[in-house]
This record gives sequence, structure tokens and C-alpha cells, in this order.
Amino acid sequence: MTKTMAPSNMLLTETRSREPAVEGVDAHPVAGNGLLHRRSFLSKGLVLAGTSSALAAGLRAARAAPLTDPPWALQSGDRMPAYQQPSKYAAKVVRTNANPDNLPKVTQTRTPHHLMEGQVTPNGLHFSICHAGVPEVDPDVHRLVIHGLVKRPLMFAAADLCRYPMVSRLAFIECGGNSAPLFSPEPVQGTVQDLHGLVSCAEWTGVKLSTLLEETGVAAGATWFVAEGGDAPHIDRSVPLAKAFDDALIALYQNGEPLMPGNGFPMRLVLPGFEGNMQTKYIRRIELTSEPAMSYYESQVYTAPLPSGRALQFYFVCDVKSFITFPSYGFKLPRPGLYEISGLAYSGEGRISKVLVSADGGKSWGEAALQDPVMSKAFTRFRMPWRWNGGPAIIQSRAYDERGNSQPTRSEFVAARGQYEKVPDIKAFQNHHFNAVMSWGIDSNGEIKHVYA
Amino acid sequence: MTKTMAPSNMLLTETRSREPAVEGVDAHPVAGNGLLHRRSFLSKGLVLAGTSSALAAGLRAARAAPLTDPPWALQSGDRMPAYQQPSKYAAKVVRTNANPDNLPKVTQTRTPHHLMEGQVTPNGLHFSICHAGVPEVDPDVHRLVIHGLVKRPLMFAAADLCRYPMVSRLAFIECGGNSAPLFSPEPVQGTVQDLHGLVSCAEWTGVKLSTLLEETGVAAGATWFVAEGGDAPHIDRSVPLAKAFDDALIALYQNGEPLMPGNGFPMRLVLPGFEGNMQTKYIRRIELTSEPAMSYYESQVYTAPLPSGRALQFYFVCDVKSFITFPSYGFKLPRPGLYEISGLAYSGEGRISKVLVSADGGKSWGEAALQDPVMSKAFTRFRMPWRWNGGPAIIQSRAYDERGNSQPTRSEFVAARGQYEKVPDIKAFQNHHFNAVMSWGIDSNGEIKHVYA
Repeated sequence: MTKTMAPSNMLLTETRSREPAVEGVDAHPVAGNGLLHRRSFLSKGLVLAGTSSALAAGLRAARAAPLTDPPWALQSGDRMPAYQQPSKYAAKVVRTNANPDNLPKVTQTRTPHHLMEGQVTPNGLHFSICHAGVPEVDPDVHRLVIHGLVKRPLMFAAADLCRYPMVSRLAFIECGGNSAPLFSPEPVQGTVQDLHGLVSCAEWTGVKLSTLLEETGVAAGATWFVAEGGDAPHIDRSVPLAKAFDDALIALYQNGEPLMPGNGFPMRLVLPGFEGNMQTKYIRRIELTSEPAMSYYESQVYTAPLPSGRALQFYFVCDVKSFITFPSYGFKLPRPGLYEISGLAYSGEGRISKVLVSADGGKSWGEAALQDPVMSKAFTRFRMPWRWNGGPAIIQSRAYDERGNSQPTRSEFVAARGQYEKVPDIKAFQNHHFNAVMSWGIDSNGEIKHVYA
Repeated sequence: MTKTMAPSNMLLTETRSREPAVEGVDAHPVAGNGLLHRRSFLSKGLVLAGTSSALAAGLRAARAAPLTDPPWALQSGDRMPAYQQPSKYAAKVVRTNANPDNLPKVTQTRTPHHLMEGQVTPNGLHFSICHAGVPEVDPDVHRLVIHGLVKRPLMFAAADLCRYPMVSRLAFIECGGNSAPLFSPEPVQGTVQDLHGLVSCAEWTGVKLSTLLEETGVAAGATWFVAEGGDAPHIDRSVPLAKAFDDALIALYQNGEPLMPGNGFPMRLVLPGFEGNMQTKYIRRIELTSEPAMSYYESQVYTAPLPSGRALQFYFVCDVKSFITFPSYGFKLPRPGLYEISGLAYSGEGRISKVLVSADGGKSWGEAALQDPVMSKAFTRFRMPWRWNGGPAIIQSRAYDERGNSQPTRSEFVAARGQYEKVPDIKAFQNHHFNAVMSWGIDSNGEIKHVYA
């Protein structure tokens, strides 16, 4: 068979192309411009039994080509490593680095969601932002102090925390500045990684902060705590004390192994659903207070200027959101046919209840299939079958959560939150918590662009 | 405070010690020798509010020590990598390698479960067995052929598979030879990694095999398929065709990223709940047949000799099983007090329904807490509070699944399946599918040994 395409995750070229699945199939339309019922792909014999499909025909034509014996089929392979690394053929499936020379400024590394699948972000690819490079913290030296309005100030080494009962949970972590290029008045072109790569989802295991506060006790008047990081920037953020008794965690493990250095080794604060900057890495200090600290990141950086001239402050929760990872900018649809639209949805307030998908720019919507397990404040993978007829299409996703929140349309969002006056550099962050519906436009050549619709 | 301990995952010494949590607490006993109700740790104020606890006292004594500013608190850190790696301080959290010189024989690399937590096995630490080293397969060259008793033999590149609808699922994969040292007539001493390290759990994403068989069609008489690997050993195994229409998957992604080279990059067969050797890595051929191939691995290696002199053959499913990861061999309990017993349970037939834990060698049992999400044919983390009184104790776990299966006791298992006549080398595998209850014995010094009880 021809080798015109590589799978999305193994590509060597910037412009990717992914073939449709079968054509001419009998499936159940649920919305305009080719959207099919979410179970179409799951109905045995319904969609994929088409013997006349272009794909099957292409594969049949390949019959004459015999199975070859490449080098790995004829000789022994390499020594097996103590810690596995990705294939050299997956070398493109990596984080981008906004500060490759490690200049003295913030560094964002972004998760390549357009080259990934599923719900879990593997530790190698979890996004990470460090304000002074990635520190190498010795867990035998590092300490966490809890003090302020407590009855007994206490200090904990990582080894101390391991004495306490643990809990595990899947949780996404999203930078408040994720998707900020979408505040631009004109659509900025970029991959899902470029536009939405500052969010990831892992299984975090550690000790509930409430467990540690049971040990220190809470003194009268305490309503906030200030968390401070142990690396050189010593970022400090104020968190309502109620979060400590809800689901805050001092995490020690990430997807089963000790935290990655870029994600807070040996310990970090996890505040499920809150913006990433508050989830203090290398946490060394928690001070219980009667008011917020009004620190730099909460009084300046992570405020959201509003059209009214006022600004949102102490705006913690990452609201319900979704984006389509395939098809997306960087891919090309080579011909009309059946495709699976796939993407990620999440809400800082709870479980995703449904995701709607449109292929006609929001005129009509169909409900996507949600992959189990659907967990609170975690990624939910959605999938939707779509028959592209070769004409122009605008695909969108819109997520809803169990608390009744729905992802705003772009026009709703801009009316409430505003947008930049001019097109920014893609790396410029001047506003936060963008969560509106976004659109990929597909033209009749199968080219995909970021569009506003 | 004193620095006598490091957390379990960051240890530099072979003999580890983990301090108890608080002592003198008021909790609810549910079984003999100190087992407490599984929700004891979760009841606010019940267990951890003890102001006189030895731990809290120790931490209070540390108050005088000020927070120091180690080097990472004063200077910028390193450049942030494209693909994150563990901290150098977690250098012990790696797979062991039974064939470090890569001699021409099978290599087992084992997952360090005693140093891990949670449900997910990160990709770097997923166990792997290769029979001729780890191959470096080019996904643009590799092909999968489906032929034999089909209507249309077809050949698929990885890029072709990416055209099809995908599904994701958590699934454990276990080598049939995992835990084989426990067939010994005397307990072999080793860590959880040594004894049970040939099982891991990841999120696999790919195309259902049934989807591909819809494309090829199934000819009359097909009841089995033979799967063949593409690396040099070309291991072939026969699988009942019903499994293809149940939950078999051609996986392309592992925890969100392309498969690791040691786990089958660019594609592998995933047969949830079946022994690992059948879940063909680097899969290049699926032949539909009317009978099994009687290949080497199914006619010789993965047969289970029985006390009767007969042997089990085509014994696919990994039966319900559990083991305690903490406390376990290699740790030391420094003093009496409250500890959290933690471990993993799984069944090849479905969801774990409950896990019982004993601290008196099976005389009495209490029900452990199960960490959400409890998924079919996936790891389930269980946790159980335990107050060790400083006397001898034998801790055990016993898992049950939703299909009504229960993990056998050792005596039940040995009666049915037999054991070796003499103590084997820990690397020797002569029998398979060991799934009995196992025991850790704790003496009055807090030393932990593998015992039979």
C-alpha cells in the first residue's frame, strides 16, 4: 500500500494528513454537515462493514505486498533500560519549550495533545511552568512548615508525610494562562499544543492537607492559607481555608511514581480544579492567616481585566471547557469520508455531564461519546463520528458539567470578559481563564485552520 | 527533627524504615491484632487529632529548626527538558533487569511496586519481557496482516489504524510467570518487585480488533486467531476468536503517548485479563484459524503442571489476586503505632468487589477501603489502617471480584496446583498463574519477612 501518511503520533513533517475511515456507510445522522450518532462506530456491522469502502479497497490492493523482514525481525534488540524511554520514532511527541536557552525568566513547556490520545498525561509530557528553571530538590533536606494561625506549628519532611494515610485521584492541572492566545481579536494559528498545551491530567497520590491540619490544629480566625514554594522564586499564593478541608492534597506521587522535578518533586500542593499557579510546587510553607497575602501573582498576574475596566481577582476555578484534538491545525484531511472527532473536556467544578459537537459552526449539535471513567475535575476524552462531505466545515465542541455549567460560546465569553485589542505574540499572556468554545475550520482541500465562528 | 527515615520512594539504603502515624488514638477495631475500620483514617478528628501523638510530639520538637535556604532556594534551576525524567533522588525507583548484559535469552524487567503508589504504572516503569532484547521498530515500515479464515485479507500500517475509531481503557497486564517464586516449598525472600514485579497497569488506547475484523470479514469455521510478533523471536500464540469480539484491542497509545519500545511500539495486542505473553507486542500477523497453533509458548511454556501429573493448557485468564505493597520485605517498622497497609488487587474477570485484610495470619479479617475508580481488569489500590502493637503479626490480603471469584488461600492453592519440590532460584520459572494469598510476617523488631501462613 502507499505510504502517504504516518499516524498522528509518529510524524516527521509539520503538515500531517490522516485518512478517513470507510466511506459510503450507513450510519445515523444526528446533526448537520455529517455528524453521526455517537454509537455509530460501536454498532457492529453498522458503519464498518462496508465492503466497498475506499479504505478497505486500498488495503486489499496491498495484498500483493508480502510481509517483509526488516532488521528488527532478524536480529536481537537492545539492552532493556531500567527506566523506559520513548521510541526514537516518537521524537516529535515532546513538550515545546518557550525558553530553550533557560534565560532568567519564566519557562512554559506544553503538552502535545494533538499527538496524544486517552485521558492520562504521561509524566514525561506533563506540562510544566517554572519561573527560574527546574530545581533539583533533595527530599532529605526539603521541609514543609505549617504555621501561622494553628495550635501547633509543625514541620514535615517527605518521610514524615509517608507516615500518613494516602489518597489517590485523577486531576487535571491547568495554567490560568492556558489558551490565552484566543483572547486575540483575530484567530492565532497554532496546534492544540501551542494553544491549549498548558493543561495536563495525572493521578496524584499524597496526604490530604486536612489530615495535616488535624495535626497542627486550626486557631480561631483562620480563613485563608498562604502556600509558598521552595524553589528560588518562592511563589506565594493565598487559598481559602475551606479548600484545605475539601480536596486539597500534598502530593508525593504522580501516576504512581515520585513527582517529576518539573511538577514539584518531592512534594506539591494539589488543589483540584484551581488554576495551576496556586498548586504550589516544592511547597515549603503553609501559613494559616485571617486574610489573603495580596501577593504578586494574585494581585497582579492572575487577575482578569474586564471590559468594564474592573478586574476579577481571586478567580481560582478553571471553568468548564473542551477542545478538539483531532482534526486540528497541523493535520490535513486528504479526502472526504468518515473521521472520528476526538477531544478533551474538563471542569474545575466536577464531572463532565455531556459534550456536544457541531460540524456546521454551531448551527446544530450532536452529543459525543464520553470515554469511561468520567471523574470529577479530571480530563474526559470525548469522541464523535463524522462523515466529511468534502465541503467547508467548522467543527466545535461544547462541554457541560454536573453542576449545570456550560462552556460559553465565543461571543458570550467576549461580551463578558473582553479580548485583546490587537493580535498578540502567541507567547504573550495578558489575560487568563479563557474557556470559550473554539472552532477549527476545514476547507475543501482538507486544510485546517483556527477560525472564529 | 531527626532524619532517620526517607520516604519509601526516595531511599538510598536497602533496609527501609517507615515511622508509624499517630499513636494512642481512638479508632474502631474491625479484626484481630490491631486492624481498624477502613474509614478510620477518613473520619475527621477521630484518628489524627491526638495531641499527644508521638509523631506530633516529634514534629513539635522540630520547631526550633528554622527553614533553611538550600541551593535550589537561592539560584535558578536547570533547563526544562522536552521529555521529563525522574529526579536523581528517585534513582532507586527503577525496574530491575534479570539480564543486564543482554545475553541471548529472555529478559525480565520488573516494576518497583514497593516504591510506588496509586493505580497507574507510569510508562518508564511498566514491566517488560523481551525474548531477544528490545527492538527498535520503524512505524512507517511495520505492517499488520490479518489473513487466514477471513473474507478479505488486509494489511494495516500504524497510519491506517489511526483512521479507525479508538477506545481507551485501563488494563493490567501480568506475565503468567509473575509470583512464580511463591511455588517454592519455603518462602523466598524478596521485595514486592522481586516477587510480584511482572504486572503493571496502564491506560491503553487503540482500535478494537473487532473493528478490523469487520473490515476483513470472518469466514466460516474460524474459531481461533493466531497472533505473531514482529520482533526476532516472532512469538506466536493462539487466542479464542470470541476474545476478538469481546474486548481485544490493537493498542497504539500507552497512558496517552505512543507505546514504549519495551511494551510493543508501534502496536500491540491487548487482551484484557489474559496472560501477558498472549498480548503480542510489535504484532505483525493475525491469522484466523479453525484450531489453535499448538505453538511453543502454549504447548510447553505456559502450561501449568498439576499434582495429578496432568497439566493445564490454554489457561489464559489471570485469576483474582492481591498483594500488600506496604509494609513489605525491605521496610522496617521502627516502633509500634498506626500504619496504613496498602496494596494492589486485580482480576482478569472483572471488577474487584472487595479486599479483606488480616493482621493475625488469616484468623480474622477486615474490609479494606478501595480507591476510586474501580475498573474492570485494572489495578485497584486498597488501603487499611492498622495499629501495630509491637508484637508479632502476619499481614495478608484477600481479593474478591464481581464474578464471585475469591483469591485462594495458600493451602487451597497448593492442594489444587502443587508447588516446587525444592527452593528454586528466584529467577527460575517452572509454573505459572500463582494467585494465592501471600503473607508478610512482622517480628517484634519490626523486621518484615515473606512467610507462609
